[in-house]
Amino acid sequence: MKNQDKKITPEFTGGTVVYSPETMIPRLQMFDAIRGVFSKFGYSPLETPILQKEVVLTGGDSDIRIFKIHEEVRTDSARALRFDLTVPFSVYLASNMGNIKLPFKRSEIGPVFRPETAQKGRYNQFYQCDIDIAGAESGIADAEIVAVMVSTLKALNVFDFTIKINNRKILNALPDFVGFDSLLVPDVLRILDKMDKIGMDGVKNELISNEKTLFSVKQCDIIEKFLNIKDLPANTILDKVEQLIGSSEVGKQGICELREILACLPSFGINEEYFVVDLSIARGLGYYTGIVFETTLNKLPSIGSVFSGGRYDDLVDKFGSHIPAVGASVGIDRLFTALDLLGLIVKRKNTIQILVLDIYSEAKLRIVQIATALRESGLSVDIYMGKESRLGGQIGYASNLSIPYVVFIGENEFNNKTAIIKNMVAKTQIEVSIETVAEKVLEMM
Amino acid sequence: MKNQDKKITPEFTGGTVVYSPETMIPRLQMFDAIRGVFSKFGYSPLETPILQKEVVLTGGDSDIRIFKIHEEVRTDSARALRFDLTVPFSVYLASNMGNIKLPFKRSEIGPVFRPETAQKGRYNQFYQCDIDIAGAESGIADAEIVAVMVSTLKALNVFDFTIKINNRKILNALPDFVGFDSLLVPDVLRILDKMDKIGMDGVKNELISNEKTLFSVKQCDIIEKFLNIKDLPANTILDKVEQLIGSSEVGKQGICELREILACLPSFGINEEYFVVDLSIARGLGYYTGIVFETTLNKLPSIGSVFSGGRYDDLVDKFGSHIPAVGASVGIDRLFTALDLLGLIVKRKNTIQILVLDIYSEAKLRIVQIATALRESGLSVDIYMGKESRLGGQIGYASNLSIPYVVFIGENEFNNKTAIIKNMVAKTQIEVSIETVAEKVLEMM
Repeated sequence: MKNQDKKITPEFTGGTVVYSPETMIPRLQMFDAIRGVFSKFGYSPLETPILQKEVVLTGGDSDIRIFKIHEEVRTDSARALRFDLTVPFSVYLASNMGNIKLPFKRSEIGPVFRPETAQKGRYNQFYQCDIDIAGAESGIADAEIVAVMVSTLKALNVFDFTIKINNRKILNALPDFVGFDSLLVPDVLRILDKMDKIGMDGVKNELISNEKTLFSVKQCDIIEKFLNIKDLPANTILDKVEQLIGSSEVGKQGICELREILACLPSFGINEEYFVVDLSIARGLGYYTGIVFETTLNKLPSIGSVFSGGRYDDLVDKFGSHIPAVGASVGIDRLFTALDLLGLIVKRKNTIQILVLDIYSEAKLRIVQIATALRESGLSVDIYMGKESRLGGQIGYASNLSIPYVVFIGENEFNNKTAIIKNMVAKTQIEVSIETVAEKVLEMM
Repeated sequence: MKNQDKKITPEFTGGTVVYSPETMIPRLQMFDAIRGVFSKFGYSPLETPILQKEVVLTGGDSDIRIFKIHEEVRTDSARALRFDLTVPFSVYLASNMGNIKLPFKRSEIGPVFRPETAQKGRYNQFYQCDIDIAGAESGIADAEIVAVMVSTLKALNVFDFTIKINNRKILNALPDFVGFDSLLVPDVLRILDKMDKIGMDGVKNELISNEKTLFSVKQCDIIEKFLNIKDLPANTILDKVEQLIGSSEVGKQGICELREILACLPSFGINEEYFVVDLSIARGLGYYTGIVFETTLNKLPSIGSVFSGGRYDDLVDKFGSHIPAVGASVGIDRLFTALDLLGLIVKRKNTIQILVLDIYSEAKLRIVQIATALRESGLSVDIYMGKESRLGGQIGYASNLSIPYVVFIGENEFNNKTAIIKNMVAKTQIEVSIETVAEKVLEMM
């Protein structure tokens, strides 16, 4: 042990995740499955930089909390770490307006960074996995985004889920049919969002007592009627909302758009069992402009939404171009946790199928040749390279790593030009000539 | 166009790369091929965080240039961005000593960050792709790392390359057989490294005139003899070096190790045509402790080394544990550029095989059904969702994106329950019944 005097504690910083092989192996398989679905729907992979211009990320809004880079000497503008994949996508679009044919459908999977106080489920570095269609206004685009998400879940063997769909335009109609100033929409939505915690009476009391909203009893009654339109077939919900909102133009447009999207879903192969209209879904306050949706796993509702998204037609406005867009994000880490809880993740410490042991020094080159032949047969093979010289010790290593087969050559086998193949699970072994090791292992598997 | 008054210029920061779909599609294929080779050799994927503790990255050395995070309020220690994948790997090892069975073989592919002044070929954010074996001292481990790199290049259809191998112990023997203070090794190596630029006479002059080295003519003659041992079969080179270095213990050990490694390579399936011993390879000054190697493509020597590495047994020392290790790094962006120059990269803007056009509004649901059926047949399918309503305009979109087939339903086809399939390359088209579109497209491909 050298340099002990300047020993540094080896530790990762809080708010980050280390993906060990046990997690990374199924995680990479999950990414492959997801990318396969995205590709089948015609989404092209894009990768934008993690390091970005600060002004581009914040839009000059100093309230947006991001990780800023500390740079002592730098002539061009300050830099920071991206906090999502949507802003870099909009930079890509706006800076390539001449080259990109719209509509443009892209997927991106990668880490993003937020200076949240580290706590359970809140990370400083985490993955996002997004698809977006830029330059498409049609309801088919909205429906397709939902369809891609459904296909993604099915590709991951998840079939028991509910997509809750709403349209922000219906919520934006609240001032029209409840009767309040449209500037209060964010405040009203914030109170409605407490429904799960404080119940209908709590929500009504707060709408009445809140010094900004100061609702009348009559206004609260309309809100109650609105919120009680639920747990019904999608079209019944839309019929009832239509009656309630009356002549609100934005509200009627929202209902019309939802009807179009819902009419498309069956043609995308999405049965009605998978989706509901849920008027309480808002997905944040200032961001979305049309359809919004989120998705819960019926067996794990407490884990929250595993994918969500919506239409945000103002995406690129701040860069001086107007491009309508709709997109969704898979909550990749949350979904992985859910798949694990549902028993759908096979965890392995490695992908090794055979460990070739090194127990007789004369046989060193021969075991390398056997390993090479096994790899040429398409198998994943490791050669033992550690300090353990005893057969038992090396078999213990294989056992600890759950490697299903080992091959070895002792002195007798070396002289007989044979090798032993041991099935670590069945605890059986056979002796075969060295030329036939690969062939015999493939037979045993 | 909203918010035009606060328009922000959409641009990415210098020193970063945006991977457009054209690059990302073959890049992801390249990653898959590389991961496949790594897995076949038993390397397990690991992913460490980008965000790290600053002290862990620098080891308290304030000269190491890294991107530091600017954090106004934070109680625990300062944070920064990783500058390579090796330091985080050593943190992983040192902080999991109880859980990890050694030897531990891991692969990692991911972005790293360096505050270099942006210039051609120097990036602030770039990818590294590493494999390492921790806890193995044997020459088989060293040889295997070289073998994995050879298999990786072959998996990417690169066959014309040269691996230049050396051992730092031979360079560390220079003081013994040339006769100078071992503290001067870095200075001498720095001068020897100028060989390509200033030639043998230049190197000798500088060794004589440099105020630190102040070599005699006799010392220079030995250096010249040493550097002239080249362009010979590997074993001949080692025989000649062995004579020159005489009794130097470290030198003899270096030669002995290289002989062992070279003896192993053919058993890994690596022919002698692929490697040479090159005594000028040092790979940086303070880092490596044993074998070092780098690899050039014979047709593109100017692009530099596409993979390199070596043994660095002091990897984890600064964290208070001693774990011998050997590893290599694929220069993934450089290799991609090389593959592109060699014509081995197929660039496509997307993976779409068929675009379903939307030219007759009555057929909207029917085209979605056809797209769904085509996807269920395993094809990558897009539906046109843009503003262009004319057939010609939508075909132009498909043509611009090099999509090989389009399917469409006009008024006649709608009434006849048929669809047109158009081969965009052959410029031929057929009309088929809507039930048989998928089947017929598959036949045409």
